[in-house]
Amino acid sequence: MVIMSKRKGTRYERELLKLFWEKNYATIRSAGSGSMPLPSPDLLVGGNGRVLAIECKALKSGSKYFAKHEIKELKEFSEKFGAEAWVAVRFDNKGWFFVHVDDLGISKKKNYFVSLDVAEKKGLRFDELVK
Amino acid sequence: MVIMSKRKGTRYERELLKLFWEKNYATIRSAGSGSMPLPSPDLLVGGNGRVLAIECKALKSGSKYFAKHEIKELKEFSEKFGAEAWVAVRFDNKGWFFVHVDDLGISKKKNYFVSLDVAEKKGLRFDELVK
Repeated sequence: MVIMSKRKGTRYERELLKLFWEKNYATIRSAGSGSMPLPSPDLLVGGNGRVLAIECKALKSGSKYFAKHEIKELKEFSEKFGAEAWVAVRFDNKGWFFVHVDDLGISKKKNYFVSLDVAEKKGLRFDELVK
Repeated sequence: MVIMSKRKGTRYERELLKLFWEKNYATIRSAGSGSMPLPSPDLLVGGNGRVLAIECKALKSGSKYFAKHEIKELKEFSEKFGAEAWVAVRFDNKGWFFVHVDDLGISKKKNYFVSLDVAEKKGLRFDELVK
């Protein structure tokens, strides 16, 4: 499992934020867990009668396992807010996939994960998500 | 016109964020204009079928004039997102008032402003806003 640095994470979140703006969705990037006492997703996207709460991950390869509280908090936030709960995952040379929290992989130890296989089978590409 | 420091601003935004959470609204604080290439409000609050985009200001006294683009961007963001557009203003010893953008004061030079007078006449207190 290879995860991006925090600075790269910020860059990728901004990249995604711009993509949504270009499709006429208003988007806000969270001040981040480091400075937030309460859970919030990386991005919150609104437009065309929809709201999407999105947790962003970028991977070079392999898969990403989530801490249980991460997905629990994403679901709770989304339910309270009235938003759809998504994980956006970016693979080098493959770009972004969007996997609904209910479509994440679940390991034998009952941990949520996302991998290229999960993303390709269950995820949407950006144009499918916003169409 | 006396405006808070950036650090105090952050503290007050968090104070407000906690108030909304206590009322069961999910709330996200923006990464901020300094690190955002596109406009976003200080807070975005969702729950009970409502979404509120909120620009926060704290004043010791007097009034606060807004740059035209600030209110224009708040309105544009809110319209795209599907949110109500509000200014939250906190006066020392008086607490928070919430003024809808359409109820802000307008100066002779056509600039938007908020003052204690405007806040008391046109604004809502927190409990009125979320009831």
